[in-house]
Formats: sequence, structure tokens, C-alpha cells
Amino acid sequence: MSVAPQPVGRRERNKQDKLDRITAAARELFSEHGVDDVTTQQIADKADIGTGTLFLYAKTKGELLLLVQNSSYTDALARGRAAADHAEDPLEAVMAIVRPVVECNRAQISNGRTYLREIVFGDPDEPHHRKALELTVQTEEAIAAVLQRDQRINPAKAATLAHIVSAIMLLSMAATANAARPVEAIVQEIAHQVDALLPD
Amino acid sequence: MSVAPQPVGRRERNKQDKLDRITAAARELFSEHGVDDVTTQQIADKADIGTGTLFLYAKTKGELLLLVQNSSYTDALARGRAAADHAEDPLEAVMAIVRPVVECNRAQISNGRTYLREIVFGDPDEPHHRKALELTVQTEEAIAAVLQRDQRINPAKAATLAHIVSAIMLLSMAATANAARPVEAIVQEIAHQVDALLPD
Repeated sequence: MSVAPQPVGRRERNKQDKLDRITAAARELFSEHGVDDVTTQQIADKADIGTGTLFLYAKTKGELLLLVQNSSYTDALARGRAAADHAEDPLEAVMAIVRPVVECNRAQISNGRTYLREIVFGDPDEPHHRKALELTVQTEEAIAAVLQRDQRINPAKAATLAHIVSAIMLLSMAATANAARPVEAIVQEIAHQVDALLPD
Repeated sequence: MSVAPQPVGRRERNKQDKLDRITAAARELFSEHGVDDVTTQQIADKADIGTGTLFLYAKTKGELLLLVQNSSYTDALARGRAAADHAEDPLEAVMAIVRPVVECNRAQISNGRTYLREIVFGDPDEPHHRKALELTVQTEEAIAAVLQRDQRINPAKAATLAHIVSAIMLLSMAATANAARPVEAIVQEIAHQVDALLPD
């Protein structure tokens, strides 16, 4: 028995359309000027909506940054999962997932580091924050899945190692000492550590 | 040929004495009320020095927190190194170093998390901040040294694994999701991950 997909209602489409406009406007302004130099009013104007409406989608500039970065992160994770399917060995597969995440996080370094700070230290009950945490969990699940291609790594061990890879990524991307380093240096730093995690 | 230790001058002793008083006063007030509810004036009063003098030792409440936590961290690391000497195997030895660091970081959880946030995101050129980073490097060196008791772990690999342990500790202690968890739960979470790092 097949069930026909429900048509998406006009109200729902309208809501998604506004969210897309807000995300695009915030992404462009944040990436051009950095979070600190953009006002929510500028974002509302660029998205062509009222500030009252904007407030329904994200209450602070911090939440708007989470919204934008979550959207890029979702895309990056999808690209990484696809690339990992074609990778030869576990290290290569893990790095196929890690690389686009690093790239999207560091498209604008200071915004990316603020996003990571929010993920670790912010309020996990705020919806956009919760979504960011879900994305980190999904990233760990994707990494755990490719680690199990190595027969010596059982599911429990794969989950633990994937959580460790998360910690390695976070610290490599967030540390002030790395703020001036290009994406490639960060990716290499992470790869070096992931390599040390894997069975010889 | 032996060289007699230089006597410490009066000026130097006086300076150390003031620093000790400031550290003790800030530690007591921060631990009792939390960083947010203490003023630098209260700390100066309790240390029995003027605010102008206080300013010579630490310019902000954030720097005073770094000063206090660095002092506890230094003691914790010394205790950990000593305990690791008596540990049976590498995991036990690593955790002998990790445990007192976690305990001192979480004596007051919110202050400890603020300290970690400063270490990762703060200004590494600020002196107390630089000292905190040095302590994390010393912790990694102590961990790398005990990892090399396992003949299969060479110095380069030990250094990489120790850096990974740093990332694991940081994320376990800092994450908002762990803010309500007791020291023992954090130590177990770290031990579980460190165990997964070590050769079988």
C-alpha cells in the first residue's frame, strides 16, 4: 500500500520561503562584514521582512549565526558523506567527512569560531543551538559508520573514536593559536591526530 | 662547582607576598560567589591592597580568574605527576594526571568552564593567559612521558596522543551538556575515551 505524499500547504511554503530569505541575507551580511558589524535590522531589510517577523525565526544575532552556520554545516555533512563512499581506507573516509565541515566552518574564521563557542558553551535548549548539537551528533555517526569498515573496530569502539574525532576537530578549529592558519593546515593537523587513533 | 642560591630581595618578596594575597582573596571570593557576582574592589579590599596596585597584577576579573585557576592547576599538575609515578599501567598513569586537573577545574563548575573558554578563545598574548596555555602544554608533556612506558608508543606518537587527551579533557569539562555532572562522571567519560586511544 502506498501513501501519496501530502502536498505542502501555502502557509508552510510561505514560512520556509521566509526562513530561506533570512538565512541567505544573514549569510551574505555575516560573511561580508563579520557578525559583530551587522545589525538584525540590516538582515531584516535585506531579507525584505519586518524585524517583528525576523524575531519569530531567530531572537538574537547569535541565533542568526547558528541558523546560517547550521545551514552550511548541513550541506557540508551531506557532501562529506557522499565523498566518504568513494574513499579507499578509513583515514581517507574520515577525512572526506571532516574536510567539508572544516571548510564551511572557516569560510569566515571569526564567525566559525563564534559558532563553535556557542556549540560548547551556549544554551542547548535554544532551538538553533539544539540543531547545531544534532549536527555534531550526525557527524559523529557518519564517522563511526566509516570507521567500522575496519573489521577490528566494533560499533562501540567506533562511536567512542568518533566522539574523540569531534573533540580533535573542535579544538583544532576553535583555538586562538590556529585563528590565522589556513583550512589546509587545520585539515592536516586533524588528519595527523586521526591517524594516531586508528589501529596500525 | 656549586653556586649558592641568590637571596631573594625584599622587593621581590614583597611582590610575591602581594600576589599570594590577591590570589587567595580572589580564590575565596570566586569560589564562594562565582566570578560574575564578585567585584575587583571586593578582591582588593580582602587582599588589603589598593585597586591601583591590584591593577598591576591583573587588569580584569577575567585575568584574576586565570591567576586563581592557574595557581590551582599548577598544584594539581604537581600532585598528578607524583601520583602517576606509582601507577601500574599507562591508562592508570594518564588518569592519575588527569583526575586532579578535573577536580581543580570543577571545584566551582561555572568558574572552571569560564577558564576553559578563556584558554581556547582568549588572547594568548595576555600574561596569565599565556601561563594557562603553558600549563596545558606541561600537562601534555607529563601525559606523553607516561604513555611512553608502553614500548609500542614512540615519543612522536606519545606527543600526538597526549594532545588528543587534551582535546578530550577540554570538551568533557567544558560542554554545557556536562555542566551538571559530578567530577567522577567526567573522569569516567575521559577514562573511557583514553582507553580507546591506547594500543590493545
